[in-house]
Amino acid sequence: MSQSILKVNCPDRPGLIYHIAKIIYEHGLNIEKNSEFVNDEHNWFFFRAILDGKIDYDQLKSQLLSVLPKNGEVKLIKREKKDMVILGTKESHCLGDILIRYSSNELNANIKAIISNHMDLKFLADKFDIPYHYIDAKDLSREDHEERVKEAIDRYSVDLIVLAKYMRILTPSFVKEYEGKIINIHHSFLPAFIGANPYKQAYDRGVKIIGATAHYVNDNLDEGPIIAQDVVSVNHDYSWRDMQKAGRNIEKIVLSKAIDLALDDRIFVFKNKTVIF
Amino acid sequence: MSQSILKVNCPDRPGLIYHIAKIIYEHGLNIEKNSEFVNDEHNWFFFRAILDGKIDYDQLKSQLLSVLPKNGEVKLIKREKKDMVILGTKESHCLGDILIRYSSNELNANIKAIISNHMDLKFLADKFDIPYHYIDAKDLSREDHEERVKEAIDRYSVDLIVLAKYMRILTPSFVKEYEGKIINIHHSFLPAFIGANPYKQAYDRGVKIIGATAHYVNDNLDEGPIIAQDVVSVNHDYSWRDMQKAGRNIEKIVLSKAIDLALDDRIFVFKNKTVIF
Amino acid sequence: MSQSILKVNCPDRPGLIYHIAKIIYEHGLNIEKNSEFVNDEHNWFFFRAILDGKIDYDQLKSQLLSVLPKNGEVKLIKREKKDMVILGTKESHCLGDILIRYSSNELNANIKAIISNHMDLKFLADKFDIPYHYIDAKDLSREDHEERVKEAIDRYSVDLIVLAKYMRILTPSFVKEYEGKIINIHHSFLPAFIGANPYKQAYDRGVKIIGATAHYVNDNLDEGPIIAQDVVSVNHDYSWRDMQKAGRNIEKIVLSKAIDLALDDRIFVFKNKTVIF
Amino acid sequence: MSQSILKVNCPDRPGLIYHIAKIIYEHGLNIEKNSEFVNDEHNWFFFRAILDGKIDYDQLKSQLLSVLPKNGEVKLIKREKKDMVILGTKESHCLGDILIRYSSNELNANIKAIISNHMDLKFLADKFDIPYHYIDAKDLSREDHEERVKEAIDRYSVDLIVLAKYMRILTPSFVKEYEGKIINIHHSFLPAFIGANPYKQAYDRGVKIIGATAHYVNDNLDEGPIIAQDVVSVNHDYSWRDMQKAGRNIEKIVLSKAIDLALDDRIFVFKNKTVIF
Repeated sequence: MSQSILKVNCPDRPGLIYHIAKIIYEHGLNIEKNSEFVNDEHNWFFFRAILDGKIDYDQLKSQLLSVLPKNGEVKLIKREKKDMVILGTKESHCLGDILIRYSSNELNANIKAIISNHMDLKFLADKFDIPYHYIDAKDLSREDHEERVKEAIDRYSVDLIVLAKYMRILTPSFVKEYEGKIINIHHSFLPAFIGANPYKQAYDRGVKIIGATAHYVNDNLDEGPIIAQDVVSVNHDYSWRDMQKAGRNIEKIVLSKAIDLALDDRIFVFKNKTVIF
Repeated sequence: MSQSILKVNCPDRPGLIYHIAKIIYEHGLNIEKNSEFVNDEHNWFFFRAILDGKIDYDQLKSQLLSVLPKNGEVKLIKREKKDMVILGTKESHCLGDILIRYSSNELNANIKAIISNHMDLKFLADKFDIPYHYIDAKDLSREDHEERVKEAIDRYSVDLIVLAKYMRILTPSFVKEYEGKIINIHHSFLPAFIGANPYKQAYDRGVKIIGATAHYVNDNLDEGPIIAQDVVSVNHDYSWRDMQKAGRNIEKIVLSKAIDLALDDRIFVFKNKTVIF
Repeated sequence: MSQSILKVNCPDRPGLIYHIAKIIYEHGLNIEKNSEFVNDEHNWFFFRAILDGKIDYDQLKSQLLSVLPKNGEVKLIKREKKDMVILGTKESHCLGDILIRYSSNELNANIKAIISNHMDLKFLADKFDIPYHYIDAKDLSREDHEERVKEAIDRYSVDLIVLAKYMRILTPSFVKEYEGKIINIHHSFLPAFIGANPYKQAYDRGVKIIGATAHYVNDNLDEGPIIAQDVVSVNHDYSWRDMQKAGRNIEKIVLSKAIDLALDDRIFVFKNKTVIF
Repeated sequence: MSQSILKVNCPDRPGLIYHIAKIIYEHGLNIEKNSEFVNDEHNWFFFRAILDGKIDYDQLKSQLLSVLPKNGEVKLIKREKKDMVILGTKESHCLGDILIRYSSNELNANIKAIISNHMDLKFLADKFDIPYHYIDAKDLSREDHEERVKEAIDRYSVDLIVLAKYMRILTPSFVKEYEGKIINIHHSFLPAFIGANPYKQAYDRGVKIIGATAHYVNDNLDEGPIIAQDVVSVNHDYSWRDMQKAGRNIEKIVLSKAIDLALDDRIFVFKNKTVIF
């Protein structure tokens, strides 16, 4: 049966669940599953439900909006595969993990293209018959290069852009254009070791744990809303390259987890943080 | 402001959230937080909410029951400290952790008594000024010993009975008497290594991970509904006593977590499993 | 510079390290790294070193044996890529992870072939240009099928046989033939849930943690020496299929870890357990 | 039988293990267990052994030094309980955990005293009959207050000083006086969230994991060599106080682990990092 996902967020006030549930009930829809959360600090209400049944989206959406406080938001979409593109540079571990899960039908998405400023990953794209857009950054300004990346992305109707170890910094205008659609994997346990070669930094600091962080991208490098994090233990016997290898396992797991959450519309972004149901 | 906890479970059908939310709304109560889950296998609905405001419990409860399917259950209680007793034998690590958290106000409970078939834990009870009931099992039948334990427990109005490494097997009649109120910590990662000296068993098997399991007690030893589990890595360098020591850290953490969940009425037991919000 | 790996195990007695180190020193070899462990229960000594320099293997080995107690074993091999074959059936997540790591040079091995009783994994073998031996088990006795599998394996000089979700039970004669060379990934946290569909068993038991175990294969199904284990948290919201999906991530990580340990000769097997340096 | 711990570190060169093992062998001592590590970056050798037998410490030490390169260090001590003092301020969770483990003989130490700038922890000291030195910091300069703390510490022969949530910054002169003897628990996953109220910082950042770090104290606040770290998962549903509570469980576990490692002389400090056997 056809399923839809409803996401509501608005200032909190008594009766919200009652009013929302009433409208859903009167539409004859079944709530397959719902989650609710109130952020006490900002008095903000979040609600997500999976709805079974045929829906007139515009009508249901406008009825829901009519019972919400001002500044309320309603998102109502069919539960189906999303279209995504992947941006990478040279490292293959995250891209490889995504492609393997894709090829075995574990990924609820269509991978439309892989875009890279290098040729290193083309062999993987070819193996899985995914279009590969090689967009060399040499001799191009950051803006001109990004313009060509945008052209490549915009050939597809894209729901999600995954930075799978894409090593170029995005301009604010690019980020704004695809706001809330770009997920990055950070090769460290944010907020630790921001910047270049975090594994060398971690090694120099003598840490006993290595982490990775998947987050939405915003204007500040590595400062976007965190979606998922995980860690792995290391010890003095690890060179920084050993730490990097251990980190790669965590990176791919954390990125894949974040992608799955985004593909199933389980994430709200609010005040630079995430609410995840 | 006064808070109450509402727990509902019943066969699932459309409109349940609407009907429940409507009644709460009409009572002028605010839903501070709510969680909902449907077990698809058994088509069973679970709902828990924290309600703000003054409540006529009997009236609210009967109204809620009137909109539920047959076999529906409603639990509605004031959110406040619960009374608990702790049963132990000789090992002090779990009891000690509970007492330390109790003494620093981290435990949402009143510890009414410690009951034991040995004197080993009396020094701890004394340190924290908790009544200690020493009930020797020697020369007593299991039934007679349990009878005296029951007498000790029943001096208090008990919401929760914690088996903090209580090494005696409980009879079905005892378990039945305090159904849904007894939490045990199992010194292993269930369902592994059921029975005596699980650390020796784990050592002999050469496991690389040691675990602990907190569960409600039912008739089958170590087979009750699991509340919490956690693990810690070990290696060939661990003797079974080292594993036991590592296990103790996990045991106390896991038991404390399960106690906190029970004290805040966050656990449903259904078909020998738990739903935890 | 050329490196070798030395592995020694024997009954423990005083002076072993001195005698071993003396011989290494007199050969003008540098100990890049060494580890030592004594199993107190069986009074057994384990020693592993990475040696830098050119070695006359036969001479060094016989000198070392001459200073060990009776029943001592010396293994001395060049540190280089090993040859492995992978056996699979239908599930691709473990095989895919190995192949992706292989294609990005993260695996210290040559994958010589993939062998399967089904055609499901051929597309992956083709993507990575690995010979695929499809050996249908239909209409064949277990012995006859295994005979053909052996023929396929024996076309290559094999150091390691990885069962990447190979769903057929191996005969004792097969296991004996490749003793100490076969690694399996068990879809559960041994010793829990031995047998069929462990995720369904785990779901039915209501566990809060899912695990995976990589182990050497011996005659008893799922009873071989454990190499690596790891877990992931789950909750009541997981269907058994969700648990299976979560389990797959752990399975592939645990199997990859075990393969890396085996490829670097870091594992001793002793009394059905492992010592890992 | 009497056991001793030998710790050696020096510039690496071939034959070190041979020369060390030879001396030990010639003294008729048995190596119960040994570990060795070479830091490749700095070409530095670390060796630790547990020795069985009666030892002339001065003679053995000078013989060992004679076979080491310049700048080599030898530490040789009896394996026995160490004396420690604990400094705290107001929070009791770490102190409580230490005391509970102490009272059940799980801590390989004599706790000589608890020192605090507040009275909040006295009730715990009293429960466990430990001398409590209340040294008020009011109206005292940092130096004067520290002087009194030093006086209190120096009444005892102290091997280890544990800062169990001691909230005052130590002066370089204090740190220098007890160099390599002070262990601190940092309420965060270093190097993240250095400074005040890390749980509020973590909450504001929306992290999905909370950590704790035990480290030796040096001149730079929170910058000393890391001994142990661990983490726990959190989510959007955690207020910063919930994060703090979750963090406390990790803090006490991590601190206890670091204390055990220090008490068993398993830690080398080198270049602001630790090597732990």
